[in-house]
Amino acid sequence: MASLRGIQQPDLSKKLYKLIKAENHAIAAYETAGREQASIASQLSDWGEATNDDAVSEISDKLGVLLAEIAEQEDTFAQNLEDSRGVLKQIRNTESSVQPSRDHKAKISDEIQKLKYKEPSSTKIVTLEQELVRAEAQSLVAEAQLTNITRQKFKEAYDLHLAAVIERAEKQASLARHARGLVNLLDDTPIVPGDAHRPFQEAEAAREILNRAEDDLRRWEPRLDPIRSSAGAIGSGGMPGTLSTAGGSVASEQDVHPVLRRESPVRSQAGGEVVQQPPYPVHENTEGEVHARRANVETTAGY
Amino acid sequence: MASLRGIQQPDLSKKLYKLIKAENHAIAAYETAGREQASIASQLSDWGEATNDDAVSEISDKLGVLLAEIAEQEDTFAQNLEDSRGVLKQIRNTESSVQPSRDHKAKISDEIQKLKYKEPSSTKIVTLEQELVRAEAQSLVAEAQLTNITRQKFKEAYDLHLAAVIERAEKQASLARHARGLVNLLDDTPIVPGDAHRPFQEAEAAREILNRAEDDLRRWEPRLDPIRSSAGAIGSGGMPGTLSTAGGSVASEQDVHPVLRRESPVRSQAGGEVVQQPPYPVHENTEGEVHARRANVETTAGY
Repeated sequence: MASLRGIQQPDLSKKLYKLIKAENHAIAAYETAGREQASIASQLSDWGEATNDDAVSEISDKLGVLLAEIAEQEDTFAQNLEDSRGVLKQIRNTESSVQPSRDHKAKISDEIQKLKYKEPSSTKIVTLEQELVRAEAQSLVAEAQLTNITRQKFKEAYDLHLAAVIERAEKQASLARHARGLVNLLDDTPIVPGDAHRPFQEAEAAREILNRAEDDLRRWEPRLDPIRSSAGAIGSGGMPGTLSTAGGSVASEQDVHPVLRRESPVRSQAGGEVVQQPPYPVHENTEGEVHARRANVETTAGY
Repeated sequence: MASLRGIQQPDLSKKLYKLIKAENHAIAAYETAGREQASIASQLSDWGEATNDDAVSEISDKLGVLLAEIAEQEDTFAQNLEDSRGVLKQIRNTESSVQPSRDHKAKISDEIQKLKYKEPSSTKIVTLEQELVRAEAQSLVAEAQLTNITRQKFKEAYDLHLAAVIERAEKQASLARHARGLVNLLDDTPIVPGDAHRPFQEAEAAREILNRAEDDLRRWEPRLDPIRSSAGAIGSGGMPGTLSTAGGSVASEQDVHPVLRRESPVRSQAGGEVVQQPPYPVHENTEGEVHARRANVETTAGY
């Protein structure tokens, strides 16, 4: 089981696992688009030079600069999507880590049912029922962590994602508007054979458009309705305030209910190691422990 | 030579040929990005449903709708780039068709030079010099067509391209701004184990955001500085007004200088067939013939 877990995603995180994979393909596509567009921009400038038409040469060169900036934005966009994707991974990791506690609870329940049927007088039933209460406590914490992390990181991920869409959009629209001004400098009045177009006199105007476009790009700032978060007090353990772990202070550990202290899944799963997203709350503040203890009390109330 | 021409592009159109090919890769990348993003949008909705969290389910579903619209814009963008690319092909085709007239002129010049060196008294020189004058006339027309088509189609292609950038940008920015409002409806205040989030009460607000987003999308209209074109009078032959072809009236053909009439490359290359971009002007209006004749007079002036 343990070795398979790395390959096969637990059910709980399967959907997000696939979504994150698809996001990777989308990001790669934007990177490709950006790369191709950058190459096209420089090809356009080369082509313009080869036409031996001063006006076309000048304008295609400057237009190439703006198209290259537009292409650059695709790449920045891809990077920002990657950041958003990284945040989604935190939800997926929490989902993965919560699965074992669900499985554990279900397994014990199952064993109790079987035993009650086969050996109704077995003393093992009592032990298992104790274990079930502990598993339920663990599970309650895990589910709270899951919903806390999910909501917080969901907002964070799509804050980044949507801000990236807006940034790319506004910068590219601004660049494209300037580029249209550039294209308008090209006189396309047709000539008759033997005639020539008058020499290009708009080189200065073209340069100015380019400067203004670059100024606007530099001056761009996000004007976004902020995504408000109330997750401020959330700890890395996914709790508003949480139990201490092996890394917490001894004093606070002593406050914890003995059952939870002995069976703490952080101890059993992560040992003394530092884990990025422990399935069990880590120490945040003393106020938090009150909440965690409260949960513990609730769980053991029926015991 | 003729069979190779389909495979190997003439020098003149080589750069644009490659650019158009690269544009195809960029378009394919945007199509991929759009497809992936659409798939991600529906996966997001599925994932949200599976969380068994009403708020996450509702918001991820509606967010999925907006992300799918954003994805749809990538696809529209790809289609618009394809249109722009089609216009660039018209320049490339003209470049390809102009190459033979350049080659022809160079070849005759070459033959004359060789003959003058080897057989200075050959009567063939006179014939070749007559042919050169005709080739020069043809070439002058071809070069005028090339510059006329290039400038007109360059403006047209980048009008479409840049309008497409702006359309995608404005629509996606609008959708993303609404989507941020949607994300903000999710309360991410952390809960303690055993507690539950209050039931989701913002379903109506979410639906309204979606409606407003779709209204805005429907109401969107391009606000663009128009790309001004002076190519209005340009004919399919790439001239402000042009010579008649085999398809023209007999009366106007009779006005054409006998040399041009006999050697008309439209006849020799296209025969009676209809060609999309004939290398020689087709009949547009009677005023045009005056220009074309003027060109002819200029070319034959030194004869």
